[in-house]
Amino acid sequence: MSFVTQPARFAGIDPATGTPGRSFVAATAAEVDRAASSAWEAFMAISGRPSTDRADLLDAAAAAIGGLGDELIATASRETGLPAPRIAGERDRTIHQLRMFAELVRAGSWVEAIIDHANASRTPLPKPDLRRMLIPIGPVAVFGASNFPLAYSTAGGDTASALAAGCPVVVKGHPSHPATGELVARAVSKAVAKTGFPPAMFTSLAAGGDRDLAVGQELVRHPSIRGVGFTGSTTGGMALVALASARPDPIPVFAEMGSTNPVFVTPGAIAADGAGIGQKLAASATASAGQMCTCPGLIFVVKSEATERFIETLVAAIGKLQPMVMLSPKVRGGYERRLREIAGTNDVALLAGSTSTLVSEGQPVAGTPALLRTTLDAFRHHPNLGEECFGPAALVVECQSEQELVEATSLVRGSLTGSIWFAPAESASGLAKDLRAHLARGVGRLICNGVPTGVEVTGAMVHSGPYPSCNRPDSSAVGHTSIRRWCRPVCFQNTPEELLPLELRESNPLRIFRVVDGVRVEPISS
Amino acid sequence: MSFVTQPARFAGIDPATGTPGRSFVAATAAEVDRAASSAWEAFMAISGRPSTDRADLLDAAAAAIGGLGDELIATASRETGLPAPRIAGERDRTIHQLRMFAELVRAGSWVEAIIDHANASRTPLPKPDLRRMLIPIGPVAVFGASNFPLAYSTAGGDTASALAAGCPVVVKGHPSHPATGELVARAVSKAVAKTGFPPAMFTSLAAGGDRDLAVGQELVRHPSIRGVGFTGSTTGGMALVALASARPDPIPVFAEMGSTNPVFVTPGAIAADGAGIGQKLAASATASAGQMCTCPGLIFVVKSEATERFIETLVAAIGKLQPMVMLSPKVRGGYERRLREIAGTNDVALLAGSTSTLVSEGQPVAGTPALLRTTLDAFRHHPNLGEECFGPAALVVECQSEQELVEATSLVRGSLTGSIWFAPAESASGLAKDLRAHLARGVGRLICNGVPTGVEVTGAMVHSGPYPSCNRPDSSAVGHTSIRRWCRPVCFQNTPEELLPLELRESNPLRIFRVVDGVRVEPISS
Repeated sequence: MSFVTQPARFAGIDPATGTPGRSFVAATAAEVDRAASSAWEAFMAISGRPSTDRADLLDAAAAAIGGLGDELIATASRETGLPAPRIAGERDRTIHQLRMFAELVRAGSWVEAIIDHANASRTPLPKPDLRRMLIPIGPVAVFGASNFPLAYSTAGGDTASALAAGCPVVVKGHPSHPATGELVARAVSKAVAKTGFPPAMFTSLAAGGDRDLAVGQELVRHPSIRGVGFTGSTTGGMALVALASARPDPIPVFAEMGSTNPVFVTPGAIAADGAGIGQKLAASATASAGQMCTCPGLIFVVKSEATERFIETLVAAIGKLQPMVMLSPKVRGGYERRLREIAGTNDVALLAGSTSTLVSEGQPVAGTPALLRTTLDAFRHHPNLGEECFGPAALVVECQSEQELVEATSLVRGSLTGSIWFAPAESASGLAKDLRAHLARGVGRLICNGVPTGVEVTGAMVHSGPYPSCNRPDSSAVGHTSIRRWCRPVCFQNTPEELLPLELRESNPLRIFRVVDGVRVEPISS
Repeated sequence: MSFVTQPARFAGIDPATGTPGRSFVAATAAEVDRAASSAWEAFMAISGRPSTDRADLLDAAAAAIGGLGDELIATASRETGLPAPRIAGERDRTIHQLRMFAELVRAGSWVEAIIDHANASRTPLPKPDLRRMLIPIGPVAVFGASNFPLAYSTAGGDTASALAAGCPVVVKGHPSHPATGELVARAVSKAVAKTGFPPAMFTSLAAGGDRDLAVGQELVRHPSIRGVGFTGSTTGGMALVALASARPDPIPVFAEMGSTNPVFVTPGAIAADGAGIGQKLAASATASAGQMCTCPGLIFVVKSEATERFIETLVAAIGKLQPMVMLSPKVRGGYERRLREIAGTNDVALLAGSTSTLVSEGQPVAGTPALLRTTLDAFRHHPNLGEECFGPAALVVECQSEQELVEATSLVRGSLTGSIWFAPAESASGLAKDLRAHLARGVGRLICNGVPTGVEVTGAMVHSGPYPSCNRPDSSAVGHTSIRRWCRPVCFQNTPEELLPLELRESNPLRIFRVVDGVRVEPISS
């Protein structure tokens, strides 16, 4: 018996006009299997290559993406509704990320080599020679994000860090920007070919329509896939975590999920610059139509006359905004549903915006920016208010006292970021100290007197946070340390020099920083 | 309606004589709740204390355990059947681990501080000041191991590393050595009191009888518990992983589980010193009655006349051993069942030992050392042969060629260790290189020309491995890096000096190594 199945066709949509783009065919189960199996073969095949070859691959991918020019900007902008300058900035960041990892791989110290020399005369037993470093785990499945079609998608941070670590990548393309994904995937594959890697070092699989979930599930279940990177909703992320845990050999999933990015504004800050802070927060909450993972969704304040004026600033700034084009009908529908849920909760008032927008086929996919208000008591009694609202909305939570403002830090759920605004003179105050100490326990990044949007790609960045913002708060999805997600340590005991990886040889041929007998050692310069 | 429940009583057993020890009462659900809740309060209470106070606590615990003297040795030996010298060595290692973490905390660099300075003139956007470090996750539940009543139990590596990180610890005592656990717990609590920490910084809960599983499950489900350390069987470990994942807020479990510790012996090695290697492997496989996590359970060889003589050495060395006292009736029963399963598999021969031992109440709890033999073909077709046999037994797997010996590396399941024996002249050979390259993918530690038993407590050690030996192969249960399990990174953005943790202040008051603007920076000496 055999079935002839129809190919699963799907199309993106131009959210600015509501018109569908060209049609794509989703990968079949056989194509998923082939991509994953070939990725494993590629992993075996490249094991003998010097790690700096991977730096060349990353640089070539950066150049190829740069070479896509205006076509990339126009395509990504059309498929996401994000304006061209925002996409151009994201493209530059994507290129920067690839080059940063190339540099990291060339520097070599990312393997965290630790060497403990033998001591034959130790009693009661001689001490063996032990040398530890990070090695790649194998092929990684990357789930692109809808809200960052370049920087967190096909050749985004997950792909760049996995390739840098030495892990072949199979991308599950995002159904809402298939043409962008195709363009970027071609550029990366060109770089793979140019630098002499096996083609399966990088594969992008179109996924959408009936096969949207299936392509991802088949990848996560595939024996050749050894790790998963995901950016998206908490529901989606945790479904993949469950799937990966149910494998005969569970594999790690690094899921960056929903985040409310709470902001705490002290009375001193409002007194010093309430209007300025209000303008900045309104802009940050609605940046990219509130569709950044770090947009502030909760603003905690202390009841006062000055606070009323601060809230008026927020109302004015958000109320004057026009409906904003959102990423997709699905994202827009989710925003409207969630907004209605929040606005429909007891003791919540809608101060600006609207929870209902007439939507018609062929019309722009737009969401109205909104500001809502409640009290800490209501926030405490309605846990749903502490969940993410993905879109251009923020909820102001009024506390009765500074004491309540501090207590509120323990009521917010795990978040990628948390922000504190205080007056310069307050930085030595008990209030600022308490807010800092308590908030740090619930977030991955704590910002003082600034907005949470804008994620630096650098060594000190932490882009993760306690659950539900991330399932692995011990990791980071951005910056140098994100490469660790695709690695595990191995220790070589009493291994002769010629059998050791170059990174661990006594002669230090790669000239990398290492820890030797407990002391950090500079590379030997030639 | 109210229930009066009987206290759950249980007793350990002296496996050398089969006689039960004194009776203990397991912790009630209310006591578990109180321990975990108080641990959270302790976590809050100590947040302002300098980290070096924890070093004092660890040193005091080491001293208090040392002060237990012969009573500890006699008690642990009586409860486990492990000989006094072995227990004394383990006690010394436990003390060493506590002191090592004290030293690590005082040195301070374990927080992995990374500082990226601001750049106000960067275009298009100014670069913020970003500072990252590791912070403790909160109270940790520690599940002691039966086979290391000191080094992996009440005040073992998990407890020492968690306290070092700043995480209060709640121990779920092991039911087979309750008196040992009580002695050690009292010593640690004395150290907690002496150094002025809240009592709930460390709690040990007796668990056994009807409440053995329940105490552990209640701990893992408790909202105040933020991480779990476990050493034991794969079934037990994965049950805790599932429980922790099903929480409304999933928490990490670090489970060190079953491991076969495969050994690959080249024809060259057998030619050079077959008899010597055979003696060493027989001793390692049966060390502590084969109840160490790193005892070699699989020995891969290539068919030849010389190999037959090598196997004869193993048979002679293992065959002459008397039945060995094992940890508990449960462990002994598991050993016998597993041994029968292996011996009952097609194409497996029992070369030494016996699969049936008459056991009577009040008799020693002993297991007979065994050697079994099969072919790689049989090993390939009976996956059960690749599972752990916890006890004094090893299975020799005969390959037809050197090529098959290399292939065998990919047939073994994830393991804590893997060993290669080769002749000195072979270290540049293709065979040694292939074995090294392939085996490293499946193990946490690769040993050349040595036995896997004996785990150094040091910076380069890796005590973990791919599933099923560990559920988190990116971590280590032993050595300096094991502290990372109880931490997560936090990034502080644009945070004024006075609000920064000491570790991240520009003035570097703790004088620790840090990475500043991508460069490793020496501490400023005063």
